[in-house]
Amino acid sequence: MGVHNYFKSLSDLEKLLRCPGKFKYHEHSVASHSFKVTKIAQFLGTVEEKYGHEVDWRSLYEKALNHDYAELFTGDIKTPVKYASKELRELFSQVEEEMAKKFIEREFPEEYQAIYLERFKEGKDDTLEGKILSVADKIDLLYESFGEIQKGNPEPLFLEIYQEALQTILRFKEMDSVQYFLTSILPDMQHERFIEQSELNIITNQMIKDALKG
Amino acid sequence: MGVHNYFKSLSDLEKLLRCPGKFKYHEHSVASHSFKVTKIAQFLGTVEEKYGHEVDWRSLYEKALNHDYAELFTGDIKTPVKYASKELRELFSQVEEEMAKKFIEREFPEEYQAIYLERFKEGKDDTLEGKILSVADKIDLLYESFGEIQKGNPEPLFLEIYQEALQTILRFKEMDSVQYFLTSILPDMQHERFIEQSELNIITNQMIKDALKG
Amino acid sequence: MGVHNYFKSLSDLEKLLRCPGKFKYHEHSVASHSFKVTKIAQFLGTVEEKYGHEVDWRSLYEKALNHDYAELFTGDIKTPVKYASKELRELFSQVEEEMAKKFIEREFPEEYQAIYLERFKEGKDDTLEGKILSVADKIDLLYESFGEIQKGNPEPLFLEIYQEALQTILRFKEMDSVQYFLTSILPDMQHERFIEQSELNIITNQMIKDALKG
Amino acid sequence: MGVHNYFKSLSDLEKLLRCPGKFKYHEHSVASHSFKVTKIAQFLGTVEEKYGHEVDWRSLYEKALNHDYAELFTGDIKTPVKYASKELRELFSQVEEEMAKKFIEREFPEEYQAIYLERFKEGKDDTLEGKILSVADKIDLLYESFGEIQKGNPEPLFLEIYQEALQTILRFKEMDSVQYFLTSILPDMQHERFIEQSELNIITNQMIKDALKG
Amino acid sequence: MGVHNYFKSLSDLEKLLRCPGKFKYHEHSVASHSFKVTKIAQFLGTVEEKYGHEVDWRSLYEKALNHDYAELFTGDIKTPVKYASKELRELFSQVEEEMAKKFIEREFPEEYQAIYLERFKEGKDDTLEGKILSVADKIDLLYESFGEIQKGNPEPLFLEIYQEALQTILRFKEMDSVQYFLTSILPDMQHERFIEQSELNIITNQMIKDALKG
Amino acid sequence: MGVHNYFKSLSDLEKLLRCPGKFKYHEHSVASHSFKVTKIAQFLGTVEEKYGHEVDWRSLYEKALNHDYAELFTGDIKTPVKYASKELRELFSQVEEEMAKKFIEREFPEEYQAIYLERFKEGKDDTLEGKILSVADKIDLLYESFGEIQKGNPEPLFLEIYQEALQTILRFKEMDSVQYFLTSILPDMQHERFIEQSELNIITNQMIKDALKG
Repeated sequence: MGVHNYFKSLSDLEKLLRCPGKFKYHEHSVASHSFKVTKIAQFLGTVEEKYGHEVDWRSLYEKALNHDYAELFTGDIKTPVKYASKELRELFSQVEEEMAKKFIEREFPEEYQAIYLERFKEGKDDTLEGKILSVADKIDLLYESFGEIQKGNPEPLFLEIYQEALQTILRFKEMDSVQYFLTSILPDMQHERFIEQSELNIITNQMIKDALKG
Repeated sequence: MGVHNYFKSLSDLEKLLRCPGKFKYHEHSVASHSFKVTKIAQFLGTVEEKYGHEVDWRSLYEKALNHDYAELFTGDIKTPVKYASKELRELFSQVEEEMAKKFIEREFPEEYQAIYLERFKEGKDDTLEGKILSVADKIDLLYESFGEIQKGNPEPLFLEIYQEALQTILRFKEMDSVQYFLTSILPDMQHERFIEQSELNIITNQMIKDALKG
Repeated sequence: MGVHNYFKSLSDLEKLLRCPGKFKYHEHSVASHSFKVTKIAQFLGTVEEKYGHEVDWRSLYEKALNHDYAELFTGDIKTPVKYASKELRELFSQVEEEMAKKFIEREFPEEYQAIYLERFKEGKDDTLEGKILSVADKIDLLYESFGEIQKGNPEPLFLEIYQEALQTILRFKEMDSVQYFLTSILPDMQHERFIEQSELNIITNQMIKDALKG
Repeated sequence: MGVHNYFKSLSDLEKLLRCPGKFKYHEHSVASHSFKVTKIAQFLGTVEEKYGHEVDWRSLYEKALNHDYAELFTGDIKTPVKYASKELRELFSQVEEEMAKKFIEREFPEEYQAIYLERFKEGKDDTLEGKILSVADKIDLLYESFGEIQKGNPEPLFLEIYQEALQTILRFKEMDSVQYFLTSILPDMQHERFIEQSELNIITNQMIKDALKG
Repeated sequence: MGVHNYFKSLSDLEKLLRCPGKFKYHEHSVASHSFKVTKIAQFLGTVEEKYGHEVDWRSLYEKALNHDYAELFTGDIKTPVKYASKELRELFSQVEEEMAKKFIEREFPEEYQAIYLERFKEGKDDTLEGKILSVADKIDLLYESFGEIQKGNPEPLFLEIYQEALQTILRFKEMDSVQYFLTSILPDMQHERFIEQSELNIITNQMIKDALKG
Repeated sequence: MGVHNYFKSLSDLEKLLRCPGKFKYHEHSVASHSFKVTKIAQFLGTVEEKYGHEVDWRSLYEKALNHDYAELFTGDIKTPVKYASKELRELFSQVEEEMAKKFIEREFPEEYQAIYLERFKEGKDDTLEGKILSVADKIDLLYESFGEIQKGNPEPLFLEIYQEALQTILRFKEMDSVQYFLTSILPDMQHERFIEQSELNIITNQMIKDALKG
């Protein structure tokens, strides 16, 4: 009981895998996903600022850092559940929120409870920071699913996730940071190359030929 | 080339292990360590605020999030190197900084370079935020080493790390958040219990006795 | 779509971990847990038969094999959720059942749907086979938690699980197979020994002494 | 000594890998393979029954559950050995059987020894249940090898295994359940798709175009 | 076919685990075991030379490097098999040797076959080099089993292995390098310490007291 | 302190990964890399001898076995660092050498220090043995990178490594063993085949057709 348990719980997030069993090449934990989302949100916020929008950085960082903390209590089951029904999805959000609330009331000293109740709330609201979080969360998901597809994971789930993530990002296409992502970052992902055996053989033969000539 | 490579590099941090080969029970990546340090810094900052100190949250979050990014280029070799010599340590910091600089100049568009050069600088300065980072970094290290010792890792390195981490925290003992840690969090870590076989047998026998009576 | 997807889903159960992140020494998948529970149920059924009770083997095997299939859809979240509230627990059972139903209707040819709907039902009823399943499930859980405690996992959750598992087994203490377990199997678990360093040193020194003498 | 050791040995089967070192994408343990084979046998038995054949379910489940238990003593070496010589293969079967016999005599109370000696016998005989086991075992092997090939494992061993498994299944082509497998399940495996980079780029570009238009 | 397959097979040795499923804290592959045995043999040979014995280094290195290559064909099953019967053990050695022979004849060009047939022979003969190999092999086994016991692995097998390894080393107690091991290396292993929770608490409290005083 | 620590350090090399986080399909430790390099060097030396060159086997084995021992102190950071600058590379070599020296002076009895200082020196000199080591080291790197590319790892680093390794091997093209490698081993690597889905379907359909006909 106490903040000690909160600190310890951070370690549990390191061991909580996203889509358990699905990623075959590169697994992702909730802890490292949260880190990446916060870093991506940082970049998107920086772009927004460049384009003259005011960013409440404290709010942005808080939203990004904590956005998946409640998965501590239910695991990462949102992905398969998401494809089931809307009611189920809402039910799960409700369950997670309730369990987070109980956790805070049990572990935190009273004077910090209100602050943490606020921090553990769903952050994806209509503020600029909420929207940046929505986009950053999906950009990381896009990278995670792209990484699997590119390495040869034939699981159709990843194509669905890739499409769903891109769809969500595109819903925010009015944002300057999303424009930046679509025009200056995504094309580089699309140009990632694969190394084919035939290409490897050509390179190898050329190198040997050059060396023997030299 | 481009921000795409920066986003991809975040994934590499997920696979970069701290003290590779030493943790036998629970491994930690640079990505998840950065996440935990940022969350711990968040709590420490909250305590500082409660005690009337003004916290620059944007600065605090930036420092914590980015504090180990340069390990991308050299791996987590600081721990063994640290125990070698001061010159070596400085050399490594210098190498890391230089490589981070080169990375920024190669991958980031010019208008974002200055911002990221600033962000990737060593954050452990004498500001309140720099000091919170120093403490948060060591609290996570304390938890990491405690976790190994508690689970039975006999490697003496972890006792050294535990002591070095606590020593550093104690150097900041004037801070209210450190006081809070020492009086309200650390004692709970110290009271963590081990489950002995004899205790298990007593519990088991009592439960059977009660059930057979009932 | 089709039985092919059902066969493929068996492979997903191999990757679905029980209590993800908690087991530090020996992880267990839903697939291998189901295997072990079925084997334990087989033994318990054999004891019941020895004592003159009639066992419906087909029913027993079906119950044991399928008892956790629905975790395919929600992951193994029952353990933490279990400690939350009764309503939540029922909610989750309901969700799992509904998702299993949808899966069967989507993947199985019509002529096999009724059979599989029956097979995926909760099997822990008041029949002898249902009670054997309840006990076998908890015996495996007892072994899983004992294994962690014995190897030094200090996580209190495992003591709670151990106690809860034993408690449930004891509720069936009238059954001959439970009597057999309590008198002929559990004591051997209790007598499992630990190897202490001091003991190792004594053995080593004695062996050297004997060898040098010889 | 005692059934406790038998229960503990089930856990060892969780850690015994099939074709150790060969599976690069999805490893399989003897425990989870046994689970999957039993589930596949269950489905094949259900089909046989639909077609009017009588299935001895108790026998079928016993055969499937126990068919690889003896690998506990020798590991999964059958695959490479299989490709060596017939004498060797028979030798290994003999060794395994003998070790299983010794294990039963050492660990089981006398009144259960005969039952377990029977259970640990080779189950692939000429009964309908023995033939279902032969087919189910190879269907799982087919899925295991297909999974590796599909994900890009270039190891020729998996093509050999795939062919050998299909060959064995085809030897039982008169069985109704094999007919069902060949006409209603295998084609779906053959239609599993790969996601190509070019396809991904087309989808992405289309989605962006649609969104920008909308 | 060809030396290419021999080179590739070295990689398989990296994935071949010793006592699969038994090591819970630190797993060992046949490749890295062979490396360690060769390095230990190098040290023992150096000691022998210091004491005036002539060492045929080429022979010593060849014996050590290749001593477990044949496990490529059968896996590391010697440990459990060893505890079964002498006949079985000899049978396995024979099988391994035969398979190694077949491999050489299939993969190596004729002019290298005799050399490799010689290299893959059992190296533990009565020459000084053969005896050093016997001892080095057991010293590594002693370290492997000690490592598990020290970290808390309660599996009795490791105590048996530890004793069997020490017993074998002691059989060579006349050798100078074994004397050196027993008097100058083993005692340091015996003095390895464990870190107790109580000790940790004392250190922690002392450090805090000192810091608060200072 | 003592040779015990040297023996223990060999185990650390088992856990030290090469290019940490980059290999997605087959990870390599420094220990097993050293083993493979020594085995490859053994073969190359054998070829050199066949062609009439005299090989100092003791020297060759010593060089190969110890060539990466110093990575114990800095981890395998050479790969990314290598692509940074020549100064940095030299700096790292110097650091490693110095740390190895300190280790020897601290752990080894005085009478063995000179021998081990010699053994831990950079072995890639202009002797035949030094050149064989250079080639063997790169052949293993070639296999490691080829293995990743062949299994579908799109990381461009592996193509760079492959090319750099082949380039280095080609620099020694005058050596008979390199000629042998280029003409009798590398072509087999180039002819390694991939199994395409379409090929798999053709095989499957043919097998079914044949079976149904038969």
